Amino acid sequence: MAKYTKRSEDYSKWYNEVIERAGLAEHSDVRGCMVIKPYGYAIWENMKSVLDAKFKETGHSNAYFPLFIPKSYLSKEAQHVEGFAKECAVVTHYRLKTSESGELIVDPDAKLEEELIVRPTSETIIWNSFKNWIQSYRDLPLKINQWANVVRWEMRTRLFLRTTEFLWQEGHTAHSTKEEAIEEAEQMLNVYADFVEEYMGMPVVKGIKTAAERFAGADETYCIEAMMQDGKALQAGTSHFLGQNFAKAFDVKYADKEGKLEHVWATSWGVSTRLIGGLIMTHSDDEGLVLPPKLAPIQVAIIPIYKTAEQLEAISEKVAVLKSELIKKGISVTFDDDDNRRPGWKFAEYEAKGVPVRVAIGPRDLENNKAEVARRDTKTKEVVEWDGISTYIVDLLDEIQDNLLNKAKEFRTENTTPVESYEEFKKVLEEKGGFISAHWDGTSETENKIKEETKATIRCIPLDAKEEAGKCIYSGNPSTKRVLFAKAY
Amino acid sequence: MAKYTKRSEDYSKWYNEVIERAGLAEHSDVRGCMVIKPYGYAIWENMKSVLDAKFKETGHSNAYFPLFIPKSYLSKEAQHVEGFAKECAVVTHYRLKTSESGELIVDPDAKLEEELIVRPTSETIIWNSFKNWIQSYRDLPLKINQWANVVRWEMRTRLFLRTTEFLWQEGHTAHSTKEEAIEEAEQMLNVYADFVEEYMGMPVVKGIKTAAERFAGADETYCIEAMMQDGKALQAGTSHFLGQNFAKAFDVKYADKEGKLEHVWATSWGVSTRLIGGLIMTHSDDEGLVLPPKLAPIQVAIIPIYKTAEQLEAISEKVAVLKSELIKKGISVTFDDDDNRRPGWKFAEYEAKGVPVRVAIGPRDLENNKAEVARRDTKTKEVVEWDGISTYIVDLLDEIQDNLLNKAKEFRTENTTPVESYEEFKKVLEEKGGFISAHWDGTSETENKIKEETKATIRCIPLDAKEEAGKCIYSGNPSTKRVLFAKAY
Ligand SMILES: [Zn+2]
Ligand SMILES: [Zn+2]
Repeated sequence: MAKYTKRSEDYSKWYNEVIERAGLAEHSDVRGCMVIKPYGYAIWENMKSVLDAKFKETGHSNAYFPLFIPKSYLSKEAQHVEGFAKECAVVTHYRLKTSESGELIVDPDAKLEEELIVRPTSETIIWNSFKNWIQSYRDLPLKINQWANVVRWEMRTRLFLRTTEFLWQEGHTAHSTKEEAIEEAEQMLNVYADFVEEYMGMPVVKGIKTAAERFAGADETYCIEAMMQDGKALQAGTSHFLGQNFAKAFDVKYADKEGKLEHVWATSWGVSTRLIGGLIMTHSDDEGLVLPPKLAPIQVAIIPIYKTAEQLEAISEKVAVLKSELIKKGISVTFDDDDNRRPGWKFAEYEAKGVPVRVAIGPRDLENNKAEVARRDTKTKEVVEWDGISTYIVDLLDEIQDNLLNKAKEFRTENTTPVESYEEFKKVLEEKGGFISAHWDGTSETENKIKEETKATIRCIPLDAKEEAGKCIYSGNPSTKRVLFAKAY
Repeated sequence: MAKYTKRSEDYSKWYNEVIERAGLAEHSDVRGCMVIKPYGYAIWENMKSVLDAKFKETGHSNAYFPLFIPKSYLSKEAQHVEGFAKECAVVTHYRLKTSESGELIVDPDAKLEEELIVRPTSETIIWNSFKNWIQSYRDLPLKINQWANVVRWEMRTRLFLRTTEFLWQEGHTAHSTKEEAIEEAEQMLNVYADFVEEYMGMPVVKGIKTAAERFAGADETYCIEAMMQDGKALQAGTSHFLGQNFAKAFDVKYADKEGKLEHVWATSWGVSTRLIGGLIMTHSDDEGLVLPPKLAPIQVAIIPIYKTAEQLEAISEKVAVLKSELIKKGISVTFDDDDNRRPGWKFAEYEAKGVPVRVAIGPRDLENNKAEVARRDTKTKEVVEWDGISTYIVDLLDEIQDNLLNKAKEFRTENTTPVESYEEFKKVLEEKGGFISAHWDGTSETENKIKEETKATIRCIPLDAKEEAGKCIYSGNPSTKRVLFAKAY
């Protein structure tokens, strides 16, 4: 059997192998663009369906806006263009032709008057529509979400975590008051945090970004930050309070009840296929992918162990009943009776795919009216009475879901360190890694110097940070709360 | 009240007004790209969820492939590049910069070595992956579907029917035998036809395209053709048997059980947001959109008629019970108690939005324990006993669904005319329009001449066409079956 890389040997290589072995995704020939394979896409579909329901419950409607953004739109919001101009795919022509030498070339006669940008995010194209959709206070709030592909030209890419094209959702809302917009941005941060913890089993710190790390065009960026098994931080979702920046750039005003015209207030918020990268890195182990039951495309794999056709038939009959019981309980289950593969191969395969529960049943189990139930997270097995086994499995799936979150929480607690000096900061960062909780003087200057010297960034100012008199670890200037530093993906 | 265009006055203007009044979509500032508004997108979501379940039931898995296709890939299949090179968006650069004069310009230093095409369809990029996914007969059949946006640079666009960017699904499958691939192409045509008839209430003719109308790169194109209310044909979906064309272009071979290497056989098939255009044009009337209940985002709108707050409260209490009963039965229902709008305004609004059933309830209805139920399709109203009203509504929705399909079928029957001569053909086409069933000699030459002279094309050779000795209406040469001609969208 092939020998696979361990996390302790080469974390980055381990990550790629987990993805490859589970069949989640692969690089394409197009620089930085990945192919999301069926098993990986099934995880994304599960995430989408939960998130989409949560967006609808909170009053949002889906819509779809153009893939292309006229170049001039980008320029309308100064910070925004600054943030995205340097990494965008530009469409300049709309036709190919065959040259005299028989080659396929871009037709120079089909040059666009104004170049089009493949959307890196859709604020500008959406606010250009909002201008026509919003006239009066009656049109507010306007709460739209879009599921789409976006493109940011990345020089260094990594499957799921950073790709040139990725899939995401982007919420865009307009409100009559500042307070309502801020409430919306905070609400959606909570929707993300709840989803990520409850479904992905990935604990997050909710916080706000420093000015330097804010979204291009936002007045405030809220974020959730998770800790990966190598101690690095992953920004898992962001929610932006955009103030009146886009309303002013696109001249979007509403008439209030007295007929007075006012600019509207805005938010935008998004999560992407990057979440799958976080999911992989939070739970997987040296044997491959580990998936939380609530998002696993296959929750239970049942493998028959047999020598004769009669044995297989007897097992199949018994399993059919269990399978239909589990399906009735909403469990996704596979009975793998493929005759071309041996049980050992199947065990390894479902392990690599992170299937939470594996059931094996052979002739002796038939006789004893039992089956062997193995859980992926702890890699423990138990022989279980057949009667009541479906209830056992449902409970076990719950337990696995809880265990994954608790394990990740414990790991994060162990790897979050408060420090009191820059010396200590550097020592902890070097030797232990993880999140570092420290006082900071609130200036971008200090933030940048720490980043240059240590590669650690301020991941966020946690929303639950306590007021506490202290001194900045770098400048010694007074500080009132601790912020969270880490190296990040 | 505004006066709207009737179908009989200006069909095309009527179509645009129906879309605008219902809030389905609008043109964007980006040439040929539309914005799909929430109500229009909700219809697409309903279509997607039904189709997606049907694809999964028939053994397909979703996946996602890159938006961009290297220019050289397009050239690999000769017919394919011929079909798509003339209408594609070309990405040539990956960065913008600010010029010395302060303008945002394309950075000439960021020119791509090889241009990228925004996918007009994904055969080439997908077959480049299939090459790595297929080694042995064990890997077959491979049955993949993708939900995606695609771009074809159209010069004359029309909301939903023909747009530069559109949303669609594209199935791509690989098989070990020709027979199995043909079976797959036919199966998916049937999936489309069943969906379109059962859910959209839009009857279709299943057939095959002539060589001239085939998909670029296909050996055979199957299609479903529907008749719009102006008598024109709409191609509603296509399913292609691709032979070994893409397998050869991308060198995709599998080892059979004896270890012999063979090229695989392929299909692809797709439907798009164009279906929404067909849906609109099949059922809507001079008062606006008419939606079949099975795809309507709102199936029932309940409108209270009241003068006092006490009346509204009494109505609301009663309606709450009905609403929860309907929701339990899986019906999507809205109770519109917006105090800013009068009932008459609401009636017109839900009519324009094509909501199948409207319930109005006022103080007198309360007294009599009744309500007024109006159906959108026939515009008839009935006063109904409150007890049992939810069952009444469920049955009514069924009846509306059936009625829409039957009406469309009847319309198509009335407007399908068999002709025996070219004179008759031209006369029917001119005076009556619709589908014309006629003998054709099987040559592209005749087909092209008829198209040039009359603008009618062969929509398809119906799968159920009877063998029948006849003479081509144009050339007089012998023919064995009738084909279907029409002007088309
Ligand atoms: Zn944060
Ligand atoms: Zn046809």
